[in-house]
Amino acid sequence: MPDPALFTAETVATMAGPDGGYGLVRQAGIAVRGGRIDWVGPMAECPAEFARAPRTDFGARLVTPALVDCHTHIVHGGNRAREFEMRLEGASYADIARAGGGIAATVAATRAADEAALLEAALARADALIAEGVAVIEVKSGYGLDIETELKMLRVAREIGEMRPVRVVTSFLGAHAVPAGQDADAYVAQVCLPALDAAHAEGLVDAVDGFCEGIAFSPTQIARVFDRAAALGLPVKLHAEQLSHLGGAALAAERGALSADHLEYATDADAAAMAAAGTVAVLLPGAFYTLREGQAPPVAAFRAAGVPIAVATDWNPGSSPMGSLLLAMNMACALFRLTPAEALAGTTRNAARALGLDDCGVIAPGMRADLAVWDVADPAELSYRIGGNPLHARIFGGRA
Amino acid sequence: MPDPALFTAETVATMAGPDGGYGLVRQAGIAVRGGRIDWVGPMAECPAEFARAPRTDFGARLVTPALVDCHTHIVHGGNRAREFEMRLEGASYADIARAGGGIAATVAATRAADEAALLEAALARADALIAEGVAVIEVKSGYGLDIETELKMLRVAREIGEMRPVRVVTSFLGAHAVPAGQDADAYVAQVCLPALDAAHAEGLVDAVDGFCEGIAFSPTQIARVFDRAAALGLPVKLHAEQLSHLGGAALAAERGALSADHLEYATDADAAAMAAAGTVAVLLPGAFYTLREGQAPPVAAFRAAGVPIAVATDWNPGSSPMGSLLLAMNMACALFRLTPAEALAGTTRNAARALGLDDCGVIAPGMRADLAVWDVADPAELSYRIGGNPLHARIFGGRA
Ligand SMILES: [Zn+2]
Ligand SMILES: [Zn+2]
Repeated sequence: MPDPALFTAETVATMAGPDGGYGLVRQAGIAVRGGRIDWVGPMAECPAEFARAPRTDFGARLVTPALVDCHTHIVHGGNRAREFEMRLEGASYADIARAGGGIAATVAATRAADEAALLEAALARADALIAEGVAVIEVKSGYGLDIETELKMLRVAREIGEMRPVRVVTSFLGAHAVPAGQDADAYVAQVCLPALDAAHAEGLVDAVDGFCEGIAFSPTQIARVFDRAAALGLPVKLHAEQLSHLGGAALAAERGALSADHLEYATDADAAAMAAAGTVAVLLPGAFYTLREGQAPPVAAFRAAGVPIAVATDWNPGSSPMGSLLLAMNMACALFRLTPAEALAGTTRNAARALGLDDCGVIAPGMRADLAVWDVADPAELSYRIGGNPLHARIFGGRA
Repeated sequence: MPDPALFTAETVATMAGPDGGYGLVRQAGIAVRGGRIDWVGPMAECPAEFARAPRTDFGARLVTPALVDCHTHIVHGGNRAREFEMRLEGASYADIARAGGGIAATVAATRAADEAALLEAALARADALIAEGVAVIEVKSGYGLDIETELKMLRVAREIGEMRPVRVVTSFLGAHAVPAGQDADAYVAQVCLPALDAAHAEGLVDAVDGFCEGIAFSPTQIARVFDRAAALGLPVKLHAEQLSHLGGAALAAERGALSADHLEYATDADAAAMAAAGTVAVLLPGAFYTLREGQAPPVAAFRAAGVPIAVATDWNPGSSPMGSLLLAMNMACALFRLTPAEALAGTTRNAARALGLDDCGVIAPGMRADLAVWDVADPAELSYRIGGNPLHARIFGGRA
């Protein structure tokens, strides 16, 4: 690609407007130099040095920031289709547990898979996201629940970023589930914290996550993991208030977490604390949809408090086998009543923020030239469609 | 492609079992001759003449019948993304009507579009379905509401079938909505019936459909359309009991309709009548999802009565802008609690039946060689995934 290069299109949604909206520019140009955005604006105001640069015209199409999927579990062994089927055939949770189902099935399959097999399956999932213009994918560990497999998952996550033109941001999620027959406190002390130390020593950890829930870890146990993250200088985030209100969102805010995720049972007080801490609310409609939750996250409270809202796939084999971030945007609108502008901010500007990234998610000077070009005229179409992929082209780091 | 040709795979779901299930064959072969299936079974039993034929091995993959989308409105002008956005921004239905929204917007855009523009947009939608292994697409008129535009829509539908390797089955849906300012009875007499006569004279009509609802046409008005269909020798089908119980399903059964579609408010008596008439229940979870319906169709009643259940996208710009039949299968499971086997039967065997086709939808001798090859091991995976497309290859009419 020439350097500098100029891209033009009828509509650019910069997502950089002060009002949280699309930040639309019409008859727009984007100048890219050295993989970064140098200028964006109406072509009528294009500086002469860029107006002379080699130009790619996207015509009547829409350009947005490339998307960011800020919550996934795409590294895992096996699938849980048979469990999905058993439940629809009337099996109880006890039946499924007896058949070896649930998260234990994924842990067993992930432990059994070698690194090459895990990588091959994860690459296919990453490719599906990349095909939708996703330039940054967060990937969690958490299906190992032993030191060796947690590290294996994070190594595979890093390899995705080496083998594909996508940035991978890792989260260590040793505190995902308590292995069968183990004591939660002992597991944290003897497996989770040592695994975190070892993963950090290998440079495998960008952030530390946990699952704070009655069926997983208490706020006290999560606090122990967060203490270690702080000691290691790592940012934190948390699966919080998904199935009940346990205090995870308040803990996340207290620790200045990048994000609290799920949040169906979060309260107004949680929203206020998160706003004060700058903690992003990551909404995961795929899990809400699959689990047939009755209570939606308190979007109005997040809006009122000024909590940034992100949207992600939560791609995982149990509660959200969702292979499309565009579909997560549609579900965020249909199920949580986000506006299409909020949904797009949720997979660009606010998703970047949920990962602690300040160099992507908006189209503005200095940002990485991560762009998605869509065969649509109106940015609302990206959320309006149920299924399907109108991506025309992607430019990640200035490269087509 | 050689003739005969042999296809082998670890698993074939024939959908031809007597129990309504997958009809699985393991280590299977499918022999194709003259575009038709000649033999299917375990390779251990393969007749010598086919065992010697040129062979394509799909390895560990799954082969199913190619899919059938038996209810779509993919020929239409414009989109309604802005209306979707306005509603999420808090606009009332009155606000949207004042802004020119609703079905009137699609009628205006469809009337304004020339045949080439309508075709281009429809081909893009057909291509999205074909990419998921859909070999037969039903396409309705109904956004013209005048003679000229109803015919234009049906001509475009026929052209899709000429320009793409897909069979198109048309439904005349002149009785879709009452144009603003017109009397419903007068519209039926003066526009709908003459349009049907004209479309039939051009060979554009495979079946006759209607929308029986308080906001559309009464059973008495639909009966008039069905009378004309009977006089012309055309089969009928009906959008029935979607928003209220108005008697459409009973009318459909009484007239021996191929299908009654939507059916959220159908009753046990409707199910019994449909079973006796052989009328297929076509479930449309995309519209249920978008309209946030509270009442799901009576699946248990359909099962108990033995009504064949089909599943379709209802792809339309208002209530179901759904570009994925696989996603419709997932939603049929997640929202209506169909089993994955029922969902797959609903887009193969029973969808073919809803279109009056007896030559596709199952893998059995004599059927068209319409096959879909999937990168999955277990047929339940097709419904388990939320978004994404694991199609590996398709063979339509014996051609790859
Ligand atoms: Zn998660
Ligand atoms: Zn319809």
